[in-house]
Amino acid sequence: MKPKVGFIGLGIMGKPMAKNVLKAGYELTVFNRTSSKTEELKRTGAKVASSPAQVARESDIVITMVSDSPDVREVVLGKNGIIEGSRPGLILIDMSTISPQVTVEINHELGRRGVEMLDAPVSGGEKGAIEGTLSIMVGGKKEVFERCLPILKSMGRKITHIGPSGAGQWAKLCNQVLASLNLLAVCEGLVLAAKAGLDINKVIEALSGGAAQSWALLNQAPKIVERDFSPGFLVKLHQKDLRLVLSAAESVGVSLPGTSLVHQLYNSIESEEGASMLGNHALIKSLEKLAGCEVKSQVSS
Amino acid sequence: MKPKVGFIGLGIMGKPMAKNVLKAGYELTVFNRTSSKTEELKRTGAKVASSPAQVARESDIVITMVSDSPDVREVVLGKNGIIEGSRPGLILIDMSTISPQVTVEINHELGRRGVEMLDAPVSGGEKGAIEGTLSIMVGGKKEVFERCLPILKSMGRKITHIGPSGAGQWAKLCNQVLASLNLLAVCEGLVLAAKAGLDINKVIEALSGGAAQSWALLNQAPKIVERDFSPGFLVKLHQKDLRLVLSAAESVGVSLPGTSLVHQLYNSIESEEGASMLGNHALIKSLEKLAGCEVKSQVSS
Repeated sequence: MKPKVGFIGLGIMGKPMAKNVLKAGYELTVFNRTSSKTEELKRTGAKVASSPAQVARESDIVITMVSDSPDVREVVLGKNGIIEGSRPGLILIDMSTISPQVTVEINHELGRRGVEMLDAPVSGGEKGAIEGTLSIMVGGKKEVFERCLPILKSMGRKITHIGPSGAGQWAKLCNQVLASLNLLAVCEGLVLAAKAGLDINKVIEALSGGAAQSWALLNQAPKIVERDFSPGFLVKLHQKDLRLVLSAAESVGVSLPGTSLVHQLYNSIESEEGASMLGNHALIKSLEKLAGCEVKSQVSS
Repeated sequence: MKPKVGFIGLGIMGKPMAKNVLKAGYELTVFNRTSSKTEELKRTGAKVASSPAQVARESDIVITMVSDSPDVREVVLGKNGIIEGSRPGLILIDMSTISPQVTVEINHELGRRGVEMLDAPVSGGEKGAIEGTLSIMVGGKKEVFERCLPILKSMGRKITHIGPSGAGQWAKLCNQVLASLNLLAVCEGLVLAAKAGLDINKVIEALSGGAAQSWALLNQAPKIVERDFSPGFLVKLHQKDLRLVLSAAESVGVSLPGTSLVHQLYNSIESEEGASMLGNHALIKSLEKLAGCEVKSQVSS
């Protein structure tokens, strides 16, 4: 018999992920702080719980997809949290991107109650969440990973067990280092092309065939040229991830001068009205300020 | 009847490119400063000329693939250069990566003699040159581009006419901005993974499925993990390209803080014995110095 699944956190990523779990035939109980976001799932067959504790009581496996370390701590260990509705044998899969150290602490707390935990953050953005093609990086016990693999497969395509508790979060932080600098690469390249007066669309086309190729070039450069800054992935959350990366890097004595630069460049735009709620490719605005130009499909000068 | 082709500059890139032109059935005349490098092509049917001027006399279209702006200027406009053997209607395709401004100057000089010129720098590395799958970015007159397209197709797969003389070089500089920062992305991510004690191969595998994906991750990260620093593309030439990029950016008033950082990081390794002749993914050594670790397939700590 299929395990009963709980899902907490129905944001840009969480909602389509929960829909894919439901679509795969799992009995699903959901909870969201803003309860209006549960309505669509309720209509398609999910039960709605009144607290994370109640989700835990109704489920064999609980998935969390919230914003940051304090949110996961609150939802799991806080008042009416998962731990209050838990029993030995319950499994928590935290798919949020949070601190690896906090992950290890929460895992330790849950372990004392006989609750298993995987950290399983994702990459691939809203598109990957909707299409069920996320990349999922998993930390935790191998045997728990294997038991949860069918559910993870309902949300993702490339699913990798990286190592023990926290290893999934570490891998995700590495992922964000690459995603950040690949995006900076696109932004610097596009600004140079714009100021040189080139046809930007031809440049994107030409660069996609060689050593400049990246997910950012294929997916984010066209949006920049169209001046479409809808998220995708919010500037605000990208900055949260960069703070996690830089703090984790500090904890293990690693210098990340490029990643740190991206964080600083976001600082220059984040203070502007509404900018923190734009898609993270709004990083271009920082480079455009420095160059005094705008990257558009028209040839600019 | 197929045009007769000349090829000047038989280095890591030039030799396999010339072989692909020969393989496509063109009558080929070659020249290289170090004449020993012409032997393999001579055996497979190419004629060997004693100077660039002689190559020009024997050819309808001359391709140059040398290191830097002064080399192209010398080979084209210098003593025994292409211009001395030229006649109206001759076409020069310069596939080297050089200054866009110098390109425009040389094009102007040649134009006075009735010689046409395309700038057609490439991306895709030694592998792309051998397999004939280079990305080629072309500047110059559209009708000259179209006449040369069949020859370019013998060397490349994605061939894009970007704009007038110099536009190919500008696009290539944009390409190098992306390639440099995508490589920095890989290096920072791998050093963080290594110091966190992760299994590096699993991290590379997991990251290749999402927003971290790039040509650098797929092609250069595995070489770094195997400690294989054979070129590919020399540190020395990457630094030359970065100087071109930063100088061109300065000329149009663009700030490239990330690209500039990559140039500075290369400075920290280039002075070491032999390092300038390593593959450009040796950039990792700079980050490893800062972190005091080495990225290897074994789990390190």
